[in-house]
Amino acid sequence: MLVLVTYDVNTESNSGKKRLRHVAKKCTDYGQRVQNSVFECSILPDQYVRLKNDLKDIINEDTDSLRFYLLGKNWDRRIETLGKDDSYHPDKDVFIL
Amino acid sequence: MLVLVTYDVNTESNSGKKRLRHVAKKCTDYGQRVQNSVFECSILPDQYVRLKNDLKDIINEDTDSLRFYLLGKNWDRRIETLGKDDSYHPDKDVFIL
Repeated sequence: MLVLVTYDVNTESNSGKKRLRHVAKKCTDYGQRVQNSVFECSILPDQYVRLKNDLKDIINEDTDSLRFYLLGKNWDRRIETLGKDDSYHPDKDVFIL
Repeated sequence: MLVLVTYDVNTESNSGKKRLRHVAKKCTDYGQRVQNSVFECSILPDQYVRLKNDLKDIINEDTDSLRFYLLGKNWDRRIETLGKDDSYHPDKDVFIL
């Protein structure tokens, strides 16, 4: 299933800037960055639970905001873009390392 | 239906800063800001077409990125949040002006 993660982290303090870096790093472990604070994660339900717990441990719940949008399996037809789009298709584009 | 709009606008130039303000202003005409560059718009299909056209007229398609996620009608169960959440429910929360 595809889970969209969007976030706003309060970066007024140095600890906030650190949290922002850690949130982005953690999301990179689970999916691809499609915009500055937007990640698309093609993950299984149990991975989604772990992702939420990992992020919950990082953020300050009073000042930071995380939103998860569950786009399900047939998510292709749910996404449209305008302008710059450097994203890859997690199920189709294959990388030979 | 609920349409999620996320955007990254290149603000290195003054015209970019202006585009950013205009994108946010235009999205406000169609829905609610739930994070800095994330809007949830509870709109009809023809309004969605107009929204896309309006935004297309604003952005620089070479440097700016707009993503639309179509969450459909039963979107309640597709959204989860962690931390700060000042959003309202467009179909349930009623405002007496």
